[in-house]
Amino acid sequence: MRNIRMTIGYEGTRYAGWQIQPGAPTIQGVLEDRLTRILQEPVRLAGAGRTDAGVHALGQVANFSTECRIPLAGLRSGLNARLPEDIRILETAEAEPGFHARSWARGKEYRYTMVRAEVVSPFEAPRVMLLHGALDVPAMADAATRFEGRHDFTSFCPAATELDDKTRRIFTSRIEEDGDRLTYVVRGEGFLRHMVRTIVGTLVAVGRRRIGAADIASILAARDRRSAGPCAPARGLTLMRVEYDGERA
Amino acid sequence: MRNIRMTIGYEGTRYAGWQIQPGAPTIQGVLEDRLTRILQEPVRLAGAGRTDAGVHALGQVANFSTECRIPLAGLRSGLNARLPEDIRILETAEAEPGFHARSWARGKEYRYTMVRAEVVSPFEAPRVMLLHGALDVPAMADAATRFEGRHDFTSFCPAATELDDKTRRIFTSRIEEDGDRLTYVVRGEGFLRHMVRTIVGTLVAVGRRRIGAADIASILAARDRRSAGPCAPARGLTLMRVEYDGERA
Repeated sequence: MRNIRMTIGYEGTRYAGWQIQPGAPTIQGVLEDRLTRILQEPVRLAGAGRTDAGVHALGQVANFSTECRIPLAGLRSGLNARLPEDIRILETAEAEPGFHARSWARGKEYRYTMVRAEVVSPFEAPRVMLLHGALDVPAMADAATRFEGRHDFTSFCPAATELDDKTRRIFTSRIEEDGDRLTYVVRGEGFLRHMVRTIVGTLVAVGRRRIGAADIASILAARDRRSAGPCAPARGLTLMRVEYDGERA
Repeated sequence: MRNIRMTIGYEGTRYAGWQIQPGAPTIQGVLEDRLTRILQEPVRLAGAGRTDAGVHALGQVANFSTECRIPLAGLRSGLNARLPEDIRILETAEAEPGFHARSWARGKEYRYTMVRAEVVSPFEAPRVMLLHGALDVPAMADAATRFEGRHDFTSFCPAATELDDKTRRIFTSRIEEDGDRLTYVVRGEGFLRHMVRTIVGTLVAVGRRRIGAADIASILAARDRRSAGPCAPARGLTLMRVEYDGERA
């Protein structure tokens, strides 16, 4: 039995997220359909991250088992020829027998793109949140770094989230400024649902001076969703990379 | 009467080109529809370049006359709010009374993007031609410069093109190489239908060593469509800029 690992990119705009669900187009659903047709056997994919509706990826990872002998390069080109152009198989590789894209993941990197402009090129409009008005960027950058370390992120996920442990370790959390473009880059061992987008919504509230950078500690300590800022739109978020043992880039 | 000039960007993938036609979605058709609704009067747009189906733009220019008093910024934001996201109004401006986007144009710049890879990010896949196999890039670069100057481009437009004068002046024609990316940049006073794409198809044939760079002169002199290479796919082509007197960038 082979265990095949794929690195996948997608523009999530047209999809109801990664995870398969009835009656809605999903990345996993489209991929499993095309894989099943090519391999002529039912295929079930395990994806590293369940990206939400409208979220993009340049480095999603998924794996599946097969007895099929198709060469890796032929699998990639066959899939890319049959997939819609907003889903691309970037790499295929043979993985160790026990490899599981989700449970073996040791870290993920996300980027969230904001542009301070009235309008942005149609080439990137679907992947950007536009920001208008005054913005205190140094305060946002200060606030961003306060998420680094191990924290309880109860304030940054939906109140209904049923998980015993909402503690997550964040390796890097920073704002990069380049002209009218602000990118929030975050790397961590794992993320709760809506967590990155709620951090971004909170950072924008800091930029608007509705929240102070020094308030991040008390917002985390409150363990109350109402203490943080709003959840930023999905469109700005991209899953850049999934990290595994011995593979940190 | 105001004469309003707009700079427009679009990802052309979903459209049957710029020019309005019955039963097919076109950039001009969508824009006139939204303008007519916002201004509550019939609007007819004059566009600088009739881009073909699937061709993109970051600097298309169009103008229209109106007696409406809507402010420029409100027109832009109102249009962008109502337009599909793959068409964006980048600028609005008051133009001189006689300004006509097509007949006043003194030059245009196009770019054609080729990537030497098996697969490209889903974010730019719709705007790129993928190239596989060996490619003599210096020969392509040499061939590209041979289009500069004033030439009869009969060999580079469809045989059925009914125009008395197929002579056009090209200011700049060059290949830019950046890693696995090749960009063909061309600036000229005007272009025939399919001309840029047929130049690109011919440059790729030079890269494949099916045509020599030194053959460009005889292909131009042949004034026969069959002497040039194939018309490259629309997807790689973007109208970057339209130039007017006193505005050269």
